[in-house]
Amino acid sequence: MESNVVLATGKYDVVGTRPIRHDGTDKVTGRAQYGADVHLPGLLHGAVLRSPHAHAWIKSIDTSAAMAIPGVKAVATAADLPQPSGETADLGEGAMTNPKFLSNNVLAAEKALYKGHAVAAVAADSPHLAEEALSAIRVEYEVLPEVTDVVKAMEEDSPLLHERLETFSLAGIQPGGLLSADDDEKGSNVSNHFVLEKGDLAEGFANGHVTVEREYRTATVHQGYIEPHSATALWNKDGELTIWCSSQGHFAIRDNTALVLDIPVSQIKVIPLEIGGGFGGKLSTYLEAVAAVLSKKSGQPVKMTMNRAEVFEGTGPTSGGYIKVKMASDPEGKITAAEALLVYEGGAYPGAPIGGASQCIFGAYNIPNARVEAYDVVVNKPKTAAYRAPGAPAAAFAAETVIDELCTKLGLDPLEFRRRNAAEEGTRQISGIAFPRIGYLETLKAAQEHPHYSAPLSGSNRGRGVATGFWRNNTGPSTAFASVNSDGTVNLVEGSPDIGGTRVVAAMHMAEVLTIPVEDVHPQVADTDSIGYTSSTGGSSVAFKTGWACYEAAQDIKQQMIERAATIWDVNAADVELKGGSFVHSKDPELSISFKELAGMLNGTGGPIVGRASVDPRGVGGAFAANIVDVEVDPETGKVEILRYTAVQDVGKAVHPGYVEGQIQGGVVQGIGWALNEEYFFDEGGRMTNSTFLDYRMPTSLDLPMIDTVIVEVPNPGHPFGVRGVGEVPIVPPMAAIANAIHDAVGVRMTSLPMTPGKVLEEIWKQSD
Amino acid sequence: MESNVVLATGKYDVVGTRPIRHDGTDKVTGRAQYGADVHLPGLLHGAVLRSPHAHAWIKSIDTSAAMAIPGVKAVATAADLPQPSGETADLGEGAMTNPKFLSNNVLAAEKALYKGHAVAAVAADSPHLAEEALSAIRVEYEVLPEVTDVVKAMEEDSPLLHERLETFSLAGIQPGGLLSADDDEKGSNVSNHFVLEKGDLAEGFANGHVTVEREYRTATVHQGYIEPHSATALWNKDGELTIWCSSQGHFAIRDNTALVLDIPVSQIKVIPLEIGGGFGGKLSTYLEAVAAVLSKKSGQPVKMTMNRAEVFEGTGPTSGGYIKVKMASDPEGKITAAEALLVYEGGAYPGAPIGGASQCIFGAYNIPNARVEAYDVVVNKPKTAAYRAPGAPAAAFAAETVIDELCTKLGLDPLEFRRRNAAEEGTRQISGIAFPRIGYLETLKAAQEHPHYSAPLSGSNRGRGVATGFWRNNTGPSTAFASVNSDGTVNLVEGSPDIGGTRVVAAMHMAEVLTIPVEDVHPQVADTDSIGYTSSTGGSSVAFKTGWACYEAAQDIKQQMIERAATIWDVNAADVELKGGSFVHSKDPELSISFKELAGMLNGTGGPIVGRASVDPRGVGGAFAANIVDVEVDPETGKVEILRYTAVQDVGKAVHPGYVEGQIQGGVVQGIGWALNEEYFFDEGGRMTNSTFLDYRMPTSLDLPMIDTVIVEVPNPGHPFGVRGVGEVPIVPPMAAIANAIHDAVGVRMTSLPMTPGKVLEEIWKQSD
Repeated sequence: MESNVVLATGKYDVVGTRPIRHDGTDKVTGRAQYGADVHLPGLLHGAVLRSPHAHAWIKSIDTSAAMAIPGVKAVATAADLPQPSGETADLGEGAMTNPKFLSNNVLAAEKALYKGHAVAAVAADSPHLAEEALSAIRVEYEVLPEVTDVVKAMEEDSPLLHERLETFSLAGIQPGGLLSADDDEKGSNVSNHFVLEKGDLAEGFANGHVTVEREYRTATVHQGYIEPHSATALWNKDGELTIWCSSQGHFAIRDNTALVLDIPVSQIKVIPLEIGGGFGGKLSTYLEAVAAVLSKKSGQPVKMTMNRAEVFEGTGPTSGGYIKVKMASDPEGKITAAEALLVYEGGAYPGAPIGGASQCIFGAYNIPNARVEAYDVVVNKPKTAAYRAPGAPAAAFAAETVIDELCTKLGLDPLEFRRRNAAEEGTRQISGIAFPRIGYLETLKAAQEHPHYSAPLSGSNRGRGVATGFWRNNTGPSTAFASVNSDGTVNLVEGSPDIGGTRVVAAMHMAEVLTIPVEDVHPQVADTDSIGYTSSTGGSSVAFKTGWACYEAAQDIKQQMIERAATIWDVNAADVELKGGSFVHSKDPELSISFKELAGMLNGTGGPIVGRASVDPRGVGGAFAANIVDVEVDPETGKVEILRYTAVQDVGKAVHPGYVEGQIQGGVVQGIGWALNEEYFFDEGGRMTNSTFLDYRMPTSLDLPMIDTVIVEVPNPGHPFGVRGVGEVPIVPPMAAIANAIHDAVGVRMTSLPMTPGKVLEEIWKQSD
Repeated sequence: MESNVVLATGKYDVVGTRPIRHDGTDKVTGRAQYGADVHLPGLLHGAVLRSPHAHAWIKSIDTSAAMAIPGVKAVATAADLPQPSGETADLGEGAMTNPKFLSNNVLAAEKALYKGHAVAAVAADSPHLAEEALSAIRVEYEVLPEVTDVVKAMEEDSPLLHERLETFSLAGIQPGGLLSADDDEKGSNVSNHFVLEKGDLAEGFANGHVTVEREYRTATVHQGYIEPHSATALWNKDGELTIWCSSQGHFAIRDNTALVLDIPVSQIKVIPLEIGGGFGGKLSTYLEAVAAVLSKKSGQPVKMTMNRAEVFEGTGPTSGGYIKVKMASDPEGKITAAEALLVYEGGAYPGAPIGGASQCIFGAYNIPNARVEAYDVVVNKPKTAAYRAPGAPAAAFAAETVIDELCTKLGLDPLEFRRRNAAEEGTRQISGIAFPRIGYLETLKAAQEHPHYSAPLSGSNRGRGVATGFWRNNTGPSTAFASVNSDGTVNLVEGSPDIGGTRVVAAMHMAEVLTIPVEDVHPQVADTDSIGYTSSTGGSSVAFKTGWACYEAAQDIKQQMIERAATIWDVNAADVELKGGSFVHSKDPELSISFKELAGMLNGTGGPIVGRASVDPRGVGGAFAANIVDVEVDPETGKVEILRYTAVQDVGKAVHPGYVEGQIQGGVVQGIGWALNEEYFFDEGGRMTNSTFLDYRMPTSLDLPMIDTVIVEVPNPGHPFGVRGVGEVPIVPPMAAIANAIHDAVGVRMTSLPMTPGKVLEEIWKQSD
């Protein structure tokens, strides 16, 4: 693997090394427990009946025949869940989720809003019995016309999914809501609509020397994680509900399940299992509350596991949509104005990632005059979920190809053009917030200087493209607890589900502070009863926030051990320091004791030592990436082959460079799939027709070259070790970079994702007409 | 249940109430998981081959035929364990356990030292296969003469268990050890011998007006817990060893298993299951290392569960022994001198509880001149283990019956006699340590004033006896971690296996500090990786030490929440206090926020809040008990019937009076069994002949009256709520009280435990001779 660290940062002993992950053996030997690996005495197996219609009133559900089957122990429908009104007026201040939408997506109430929408569920002695029972449930539907296109959904005469959906105008995360029943206003399919503005747009375009305006369409795509959703619930006689599941955030699963069931969060314990991929798609709850209700009704534990079709049709893909971008540049290649219209589908309920999209689309650039208008629109598709840098990849596909076209028109090198417009420390974003120290310029420089960028590219129908990407990253509350063992090791308990190797990253933060080997820190991810609240593994936040919590918990331990050493030596604690694995007296060189030795003496000198920290740190550093890609387009078939790929990224400080490289490579690969192949196909009734991995075409190793990575390290001033989030921005540039490479290869400008052979061929044919 | 709290102490909201235990539903519905409830994929079942001889050289072990049986996956013998020398010189400073003795008791090496001694073990696909495999193992023994009596074991020509056992002279806990191989000194069966002295014994006896001297014999007895030992081990490919077991201290199991296996403690995770009784007998490790070795060899998890005979023959009962006591009193009933000789059996390896016995035998009294000489002697019986107030009950049987005889001779009321000699604050114990504030006088007063003591007792062959008891109690390291949920509840993580309801007691400490209902604290006992080191549930220590850790962790939370409220209000934290479930400003009555409200705001105002504490608190308060018992002796059969029983005890402060009463009642019941029925019978070859609950006769509910309890509360100045340990001292007085009642009923002085019908009849016959 080629990997170049471009800038060196602080001096560390542990941070920046590549230790083997603590959970590695369990994962390669099959001992690691994933969602479906839960087996309990008396376990029942649940199954979900799903709507065959994309849009239909549910007139009645008759479960009596199902319940009459011997071995069927419980049936659940929306009637078993509390039904909140969903009205905006009823939402608590600061509510992040509309409980009606959340509940109705778990089990449909009045309406089925997409094909695959859960309508009823059963629990039985075996999975086969449960399947059989589903076919015995009689649901009477009144089928309605469906709408699956965002633009059509905004038209006056479109079918309405929610009769009274209120249109918000909030640039941030918002709960959506319904107009009150006695409100005269008519609802729509638009749940959110806002505009962000900066400068004087008209003047900016007037000052432009060249202007490009393009319209884009992107398809609904799925994260495509390997492990299907699985949840097991045991609702105990004392009211305590235990849930075993694999997710990106067991505290979020706990809190959202509590919301659906209308019980206090502390009544639920969620035990996290290992997670076989998430990419944003396992932040949401689907099966947990259903399994809980079935367990309550049957008095037995209930396990529910989706098949692949259920994952595609019943969980959240990310938004397809419509995007229009217009940008102008002066003759010197300075952008004078930029405008974007983002229309993103939320799926059946509000929640398209227009917040991230609108903040990121021009985020890498210092543009004096800009306007972004965004719409969150409901359509008869599964409720969308987050997917790696939510909203940004499609937006970047539009903006970064428009920039490429500007460069072509201006005859400017596309990386040089970006350098001239690059955001840097102090640049004010469209959100109004000024950037702290960021590494976009360094990332561009590393790309410009990379051998790939200057390598000759011979052969016909071959082209090279570049694109860059910005992702704001995220943070959140996180806690850590650690205890010192008598053998000098430290047990670390944290709350972030480990997707990409974050256990070892958490342990490295602690080891660095305690000046001990990372192998001497034993990290584990604890259940919701055993560690303090920790926000989900998402938003490229874990290395940042949980790393920080572990850093602070280590400081807590360090200080107590310094005090213990001082007590033993009868000296002032201020004179004791921890250096290179030993506590030493700063003035008396005779006084020295190793971490291990002191650890072995704790019980006899005042008791054990444990450390704790809870944080919600500010100061995430924005992440920037630049991609260089060479493609060859087959002019006969339109098929695009990736010949070479280089991904450059500023990561602040790579705590574990190996896993950072893995994140970059994984993001790029998903971007390539999104760029070239992946999409939901719907038939005329709004039914997905390719809900298998044979028909939903993700890239395999045979489709890909080695993805070369270049790690740039511009330390984030907002983190003790300079860490920035790394997991999401890698997926932002690929679609645009590939589109630009296609243009370089065969001269066509692709404006629709995925850029399938058929679409590419069509553009080639149009060109030759 | 009659229960009188004699002295009131501090004002508390939660402490002193009787909430339902958090783990109650699981226990009554059968959901609670005990040692043998562990089921893992690929689980093998282990079984142990045990020595049929009480004393024998092991010449050879041939396991080939066992391994050849299909389905047998692994065989283990002592050859699979590292074999430490056991020499005193090799023991580390401060060693608490001789690793050779520990290891050899787990799997016999050179010698089998008692019938039931583990010699080999197998793991197979089923328990039946494992049993079958045992019978295929060929062990060649050279049988040796055995010694099972402590007095005989001290004789010059006694068979020696350990060829080179060194005699220590340490009054505290000691590791035992072997003389080095090239030492000329001859070993013995005495592993420890010491003398404690105070004043001038000769002068004390010279000043005595009446003197009583008696010799006593007590039998080997078992704790008789319901749940047999069970351990499951999985030795993972990465070297990490996970053990599931039920014990009184999973950290002790971890540390001792690490010692037997010679691996670092952090390589082992012990997951505690619920415990079906322990009483000291589940502080030791037996199966864990064996299951671990079998798992390592087979690559699969291995479960081992004892049957009842194995529990009796292969685990630790408490010492039988020989005791001689001589005491003198002046005419006014002041004790002038006391002398005791304690010869306790350690079983096959050193470890008789002579430390506790020697410190407790005269501990309740202020005696100017005293001498206690104690011997720890190995015999061919199972290695003894702790049993409730280890060493003290048998010692009290002797001393408290001698005192009764003094009272008879002096014509003094036995409680009044004790009052005149009672230890109080400042009284120096024979160990040299002065008592802090103790409640012996108050306990005596409560007994004297109890209606039982003055109630008429009519009918022939009926008698009333009293006796008192002292137990020093214990402490140790303990840690706690807690996190505040958004619904205002608190998750509490601690490390003390919950035998008698300590989860709720821990939660009550936390609730009291946080001024919230105890139902809002969710306690759990975590595994060794998930909480800091916590010493075992023993020595009546948990309510004291873990209660204290929870108290401190709650203070940590309280302080952080005060600071958070101050931040939100923009006031000085010093002006904010927590009162009655709300944070209030001491000067501005407008500023008030409930604990629940603030808990719901934490994530948005700086992050979650977690608290931690690690303690090893000094200041355990000694515990005192007084028993009043009425008996009727059948002069035809010698059978003793308990008519009425009242147990009075100073508990400092009863955190949960219901569970304190349960501890007192349970201790008395075990004392009654020990007094009247329980004993190991051995045949001539030193083989136990009554290793079933049919033949080892423990009291049932039909044998017992209601045990009335009287809680005396003299707050312990060494604990924030005044708590003293309560679990052990209840078992100290019963044997003596019953013996004294028998004397009152039929005029005979019983000096041998148990006081079976046969022995009582013999004494009655002797008397009438």
